[in-house]
Amino acid sequence: MASRKTGEFERIATFFAPLAAGFPGALGLTDDAAILRPAEGAELVVTTDTIVAGVHYIGDEPADLVAQKLLRVNLSDLAAKGARPVAYTLNIALPTAVEDDWLERFCAGLAADQQRFGIALAGGDSVATPGPVTLTITAFGEIAVGRMLRRSGARPGDRIYVSGTIGDGALGLKILRGRLAGIAAVHRDFLVERYRRPQPRVACGARLVGIAHAAMDISDGLVADLAHIADVSGVAAVVEAASVPLSTAAAAALEIDPQLRDAVLGGGDDYELLFTAPPDAAPSIAALAAGLGLPLTAIGRIEAGRGVCAVDAAGAEIALARAGYTHG
Amino acid sequence: MASRKTGEFERIATFFAPLAAGFPGALGLTDDAAILRPAEGAELVVTTDTIVAGVHYIGDEPADLVAQKLLRVNLSDLAAKGARPVAYTLNIALPTAVEDDWLERFCAGLAADQQRFGIALAGGDSVATPGPVTLTITAFGEIAVGRMLRRSGARPGDRIYVSGTIGDGALGLKILRGRLAGIAAVHRDFLVERYRRPQPRVACGARLVGIAHAAMDISDGLVADLAHIADVSGVAAVVEAASVPLSTAAAAALEIDPQLRDAVLGGGDDYELLFTAPPDAAPSIAALAAGLGLPLTAIGRIEAGRGVCAVDAAGAEIALARAGYTHG
Repeated sequence: MASRKTGEFERIATFFAPLAAGFPGALGLTDDAAILRPAEGAELVVTTDTIVAGVHYIGDEPADLVAQKLLRVNLSDLAAKGARPVAYTLNIALPTAVEDDWLERFCAGLAADQQRFGIALAGGDSVATPGPVTLTITAFGEIAVGRMLRRSGARPGDRIYVSGTIGDGALGLKILRGRLAGIAAVHRDFLVERYRRPQPRVACGARLVGIAHAAMDISDGLVADLAHIADVSGVAAVVEAASVPLSTAAAAALEIDPQLRDAVLGGGDDYELLFTAPPDAAPSIAALAAGLGLPLTAIGRIEAGRGVCAVDAAGAEIALARAGYTHG
Repeated sequence: MASRKTGEFERIATFFAPLAAGFPGALGLTDDAAILRPAEGAELVVTTDTIVAGVHYIGDEPADLVAQKLLRVNLSDLAAKGARPVAYTLNIALPTAVEDDWLERFCAGLAADQQRFGIALAGGDSVATPGPVTLTITAFGEIAVGRMLRRSGARPGDRIYVSGTIGDGALGLKILRGRLAGIAAVHRDFLVERYRRPQPRVACGARLVGIAHAAMDISDGLVADLAHIADVSGVAAVVEAASVPLSTAAAAALEIDPQLRDAVLGGGDDYELLFTAPPDAAPSIAALAAGLGLPLTAIGRIEAGRGVCAVDAAGAEIALARAGYTHG
């Protein structure tokens, strides 16, 4: 674009080019474009997310955490599709008040996660803005042709599963907003970290190819995201609420404030995998969970029909105040 | 992401899904990701640009023009790499004050250009912002493996070429900022249109594969962009200023205000192709220009050394006040 911030070229060379050093298709960020070439028999899975300071994060978080959350929510999408991470592009709109030390820490966060998740920077754009910091990552993964896990494959009779524990992200956000003042420091720290630095389930997602019928990651909340799967698959989903797995910290939070139970089923930011699989896949899923050291818990069932409902341990329907809710 | 504007799903279905209808890998925008699969023997070329209202455009332009300029600057990058456009993703951060009629017109602009240039929407993200409209397009093209045109291939002895005419975009912007009040309406409209709605040279770029040694598009300005080619190729570039092709409108503008000559060599926003080729390619380039009905003009030469200079018709060096200048 024509109007670029002075010093853009120096910033690219200093901060961004090292992030692209491991990816030949980035051409050292010295060209107008990057080259992506999926392996023989593979295709590319593409996902993208934009975050705005003050909207998607509070704004005073350390820059490395902001970077890692943005990269990880994209990695979580790739994981939910069964794809292996390859590369990403970064678009960064920064107010002139943002100093190079912010950018340095931002890029240090990316560098650490690139190593952790096996992904590299392929390109991007850097512009000035009179508004808030606005960040876009577009992430690319590889998968065998035709094998991407979709939202649309759920079938009546499937069991519904989640990875990890549910509700931690939403409870972490509540803590950052001043709720749950009485919670123990260890639980507080755990929940806030779960909100700030989700764990994309990359290894798990890749292993679900050929096992899961439908999959996505939980970003809008368990019920809302399950509604997406149900809608596009043309089926109904029944959540067995007592089966939804909670962390020790989340259980402690609900003891302090039982009304926060809504945040478990309705809250977002978990970035765990949500998938359906036929009953005969249960042994494979148990073996996968054991192999990864990651809980994969059956939390309900797919039926003929439409919509999402939740039932208690006795089978009675629970009101879902926030079903289908899109927050923000 | 967790915090999404209410109505995002309706907006996607109403405005964006129709733009993705022609691209199977978009999955109707109902999944978390898109699928991109280059043809046998091809790889993907990826480019991305972000624009901010009030920085990269004035802010009161019709929304269809904003959309088309953003898509076209990305298409221009693909063209300069020799790639055939395939698909793009769109990230859109909108203030809540932006109404659906703005979005409708924005998407109408995209729809018209999708038809014109043979590209489709593959995915994206839509978020709210308290700041200005901030838009990112990431565009994907296809090219035969290993054939992408690069900035780095210029060699001593090459001739330097440009497509079309140079300086129109920068002069159009000057008019929008109140300069050149005395210019004829027909020239004024031409130059403003050249600034607002560049013509990506997609057909030309694809045909330069195998002919050009190095290529990029002119976005930062002829001299600045030629400096990029010279730097990364490790050569010097000499611009023969009298050979730089001007439109009738630009020539009229320079007659009114000769000082604007700087804007021709130094101004941005032309989105013409800039390339180098060996002397024996001249007949092929002439035939290509004739076939496309697009001027391809030799404007200088590559020599051993470093840097960019300009010479007049007598061979005397011209001062380049804005060489290497990055504006904004």
